[in-house]
Amino acid sequence: MTPDEFRAYGRQVVDWIADYHERVESFPVLAQVAPGDVRAALPAEPPEHGEPFGDVLRDLDEVILPGITHWQHPSFFAYFPANASGPAILGDLLASGLGVQGMLWATSPAATELETHVLDWLASLLGLPARFRSDSAGGGVIQHSASDAALVSLLAALHRVSKGRTEHAGVADGRFTVYTSAQTHSSLEKACRIAGLGADALRKIDVEPATLAARPEHLRELLARDIAGGRTPALVVASVGATGTGAVDPVAELAAIAHEYGAWLHVDAAWAGVAAVAPELRWLNDGLDLADSYCTNPHKWLLTNFDCDAFWVADRAALVGALSILPEYLRNTATESGAVIDYRDWHVPLGRRFRALKLWAVIRWYGADGLRAHVRKHVALAQEFAAWVTADDRFEIVAPHPLSLVTFRLRAGDDATRALMDRVNASGELYLTHTLVDGAVALRMAIGSTLTERRHVEAAWRALSA
Amino acid sequence: MTPDEFRAYGRQVVDWIADYHERVESFPVLAQVAPGDVRAALPAEPPEHGEPFGDVLRDLDEVILPGITHWQHPSFFAYFPANASGPAILGDLLASGLGVQGMLWATSPAATELETHVLDWLASLLGLPARFRSDSAGGGVIQHSASDAALVSLLAALHRVSKGRTEHAGVADGRFTVYTSAQTHSSLEKACRIAGLGADALRKIDVEPATLAARPEHLRELLARDIAGGRTPALVVASVGATGTGAVDPVAELAAIAHEYGAWLHVDAAWAGVAAVAPELRWLNDGLDLADSYCTNPHKWLLTNFDCDAFWVADRAALVGALSILPEYLRNTATESGAVIDYRDWHVPLGRRFRALKLWAVIRWYGADGLRAHVRKHVALAQEFAAWVTADDRFEIVAPHPLSLVTFRLRAGDDATRALMDRVNASGELYLTHTLVDGAVALRMAIGSTLTERRHVEAAWRALSA
Repeated sequence: MTPDEFRAYGRQVVDWIADYHERVESFPVLAQVAPGDVRAALPAEPPEHGEPFGDVLRDLDEVILPGITHWQHPSFFAYFPANASGPAILGDLLASGLGVQGMLWATSPAATELETHVLDWLASLLGLPARFRSDSAGGGVIQHSASDAALVSLLAALHRVSKGRTEHAGVADGRFTVYTSAQTHSSLEKACRIAGLGADALRKIDVEPATLAARPEHLRELLARDIAGGRTPALVVASVGATGTGAVDPVAELAAIAHEYGAWLHVDAAWAGVAAVAPELRWLNDGLDLADSYCTNPHKWLLTNFDCDAFWVADRAALVGALSILPEYLRNTATESGAVIDYRDWHVPLGRRFRALKLWAVIRWYGADGLRAHVRKHVALAQEFAAWVTADDRFEIVAPHPLSLVTFRLRAGDDATRALMDRVNASGELYLTHTLVDGAVALRMAIGSTLTERRHVEAAWRALSA
Repeated sequence: MTPDEFRAYGRQVVDWIADYHERVESFPVLAQVAPGDVRAALPAEPPEHGEPFGDVLRDLDEVILPGITHWQHPSFFAYFPANASGPAILGDLLASGLGVQGMLWATSPAATELETHVLDWLASLLGLPARFRSDSAGGGVIQHSASDAALVSLLAALHRVSKGRTEHAGVADGRFTVYTSAQTHSSLEKACRIAGLGADALRKIDVEPATLAARPEHLRELLARDIAGGRTPALVVASVGATGTGAVDPVAELAAIAHEYGAWLHVDAAWAGVAAVAPELRWLNDGLDLADSYCTNPHKWLLTNFDCDAFWVADRAALVGALSILPEYLRNTATESGAVIDYRDWHVPLGRRFRALKLWAVIRWYGADGLRAHVRKHVALAQEFAAWVTADDRFEIVAPHPLSLVTFRLRAGDDATRALMDRVNASGELYLTHTLVDGAVALRMAIGSTLTERRHVEAAWRALSA
C-alpha cells in the first residue's frame, strides 16, 4: 500500500470509526448471532489475489458488525466497561505507524523513556506512594493485563522469598503458598497454575459478610498454619475493587501481616484504582505505602484502549531478577552500562509495542481535571442508580457501592433475577452481567463507558424495573 | 474528543504516518540519543488541564522521533525486522475503534470467529497440516509473542504428561525436563523459569557444526539419561529459523524421538515459518505433521504489525485443560453449550484485543500472490548479498542462509568484526546486530523490512565493505 493509498484509506477508516461512535447507540448492545454465523459468511479459503480495501470495509459492516457486542455502546453495563477514546485510538495508531519494538532501551530509547515517564505521571495523578516512582528503587511498566501483573508479581515474590533460588531450581522444593480473598481468586489461580505452584497452593481468605472484604485475622491464621506445616508463604494479593462486587480489602492490615510472615504484598486495583485521580477517592490508596507491587488498568476506566495495565513495583531488582535472561544477540552497550531500563525483563514476552503513546495522548488531551470529571460522572450516576434500586421494594442491593459498580438482585430469588437479566440482555437495549454473592445470583450494573450519559442509566433502570 | 474532532485529528495522524513512511529513509536508522535525553525534554508533571492534540504531534516530532530507532527504515537489518504495512495499521485502527474484548465468544462473537477463521486461512496459505485446523481436534489462536507461545506449549505439555495433575499439585513432584537446541534457548529458558521448573530443567541439545541444527542422537541421549534418572521429559522445542543464525532443526526426527519418550513437540518458527507462503519454501514445514504445536509470527516477516504470533495446537483440549478457569461472572450459555471457543483459555491474559482484524486486512489486501512476492524478494536479495560476501576474501559466511538472514564475519577476527558493526551502526546509514557462532562474533544481515529495495542492500554492502 503506497503512502497515498494509505492517506485515502486511512481517511475512510477514521471516518468509519467516527461514524461508528455516532451510531453505536443504534445497535443492539449484545450481539444477536448464533455460534458459526460469522464464519458461515466468510469465504472458506483466503484470496489468491489482493482485494480492494473497500471490500474489507464492506464486510466489516455486513459480516463483522452483526457479530459484535458493542463495548463502546453507552448502555454497556456488563463486566467492567473497557473505555476507548479519541486520543487513545490516535495514540495507538501512531504506535502502529512507527512500528518500533521497545524490548530494550537500545531498540528504541523513546519507547522506554516515554513509558517510564508517563507511569511516573500516572503515579502523580493517582497520588501513589513515592516508592513506585522511577527515581526510587521501584518503577512502573505497562503490562498486557492485570492477569499478567498478578503473574509477574508472583514470580518476583518467589524470587525474593527463595533468595533467587527459583530461577535455577524451580519451585519444586519450596512448598510455596499464595493468599487472596475468596472474592477474587480466578486470575490468581491462573497465575498459580502457570507458575507451577498449582491451584492447591492458593489459600482463600474469608471475607466479612457485610463488606465482602478479606478478613486480616483469617489471613494470619492461614499463614501461621502454613508456616507450621513447613510451607513458605510467597505472595498475598489484596484487591481494591474486586471483580464480582467491587469489594475493597484492608490493604494496610493485610500488608503488615504478609510482611510479618515474609510474603510479598501485591494490590490488584485493576478496575477501581484509576478512580484515585479524584482526591476525594484517594482512600483507594490506603495502605499502598506498604505494598510491594500495585496495578490498575487505564484500559478499563481511564479512557485508554486495551491493552494498558499500569503496574508498579517498589523493588524493581526482584522483578528483573526473576525475569532477566540476556542472550548474545541482545547484548548492547546501553544495557551493560546499567543506566537504562530494558522492559523485556519486566514481563513475559520479549517484544513489546509502544503502548505509552496512547496513555500519553490521553493524559495530555484530558488533563488531570478532565480525568477527574470522567470518573466523578460515573460515580455520581451509580449513586443515583443505587438510590432508585433502594427505593424499589422488589429489589435489594447486596454490596457496598462507593464507586461506579452497583450489585443488586430481586428479592424474589435467583430464578427471577436471572430471568430479568436474560430479558433485558435479549432486548438489545442494555447489557449487564451477573455474579454470585453468598451463593445467590446478583446483577452487576457497571457504569463506565465513555459515551454513557444520565439518560442511558435512566433507560436501563426503566427496563430493569418494568 | 467529539466524532468531528476525531475526524480532523485522525486525518492529521494518518497524514503524519504517510509522511513518516515517505521520509523514514532520511533519519539515522539507529537513535543517536544518550540515556535520559528523551525524559529530560518532557515536563516532570502531567498537565492539570487538557492540551491541544497538535501539541502531541509537535512533541512527537521534536522529542520522540530523535529517540526512535526506525524499525520501518529500509536499511534496518538488525534482529529480525518487524514489518508494518498499510492494511495492518488500518486493521489495527479498526480494532481500536471498535474497542471490543474477545476474551469469550459471548463477549463479541465476531472477534473469536474471525480469529479462528483467519488462522485457518493462514494454515492454508502456509500449507500446514490439517491437524492444526479448527475443524480437527486442534486450532489456531493469536498470541502476543513467540515467548508466550513457548510458555503455553510448556503448560499444555505439563498438563498432558501429568494427566492433569499439575493444575492442582503444581510441578513440585514431577521432576519435569525440557529440551531445545543450544542455538535457541533464551525464550524457552524464560518459559522454564516462569512455569516453575527453573533454568536447571532445560537441557541443551548439541548442534551439528556445519548447519547449527540440533542433533537428534544427542536429544535421545539426554532423554534416556533423564528417564533413567527419574525425570519426566515434558517438552522438546525444535526451531525452524533460530534467532542467532537461522538454523533449522530436523523436526521430524526430533518429534519422533520426543514422542517415543512421551514429550510434547513444539516448533518455534517465529521468523522463518511465514516464508512457507512460497511453495518452493515448504520444506520449512517438514515434520510438522508430527508436531503438537507450532508458531510463526506474521508480526515479523508477514507485513502485520506487532503483536501477532500465530500459534496452533493439534490437541486444543490439552491447552484448554492447562489454562481454563471459569469464575461465576464469566459463565454464559454459549460457553456452557460447548459449541464455541473461548480464547481466554488459550493464553495467559484474560482480556484480548481484536487482533484478527489486522491479519485479515493484510491477507485480503496482498492476497496469496502478494505475500509470496514479498517473501521471495527478500530471499533473493539475501542470496545476492551472500554472493557479494563470498566473493570478498576479507569476509566469510558462517552459517547456511536459505532464507533472508545472512550471518558473516571478518576473517580478521572478533575485534575487527565488532569494530565494523559499531562503525556502520554509528553512521546511521544502516543498522545490524551480532551473534556468537562457535564462540566467535558474527554479524547478522536480516533483510525483511517492508520498504527494503535492492538499492538499500547494495548501499549496506558498500558501507560494510568500504
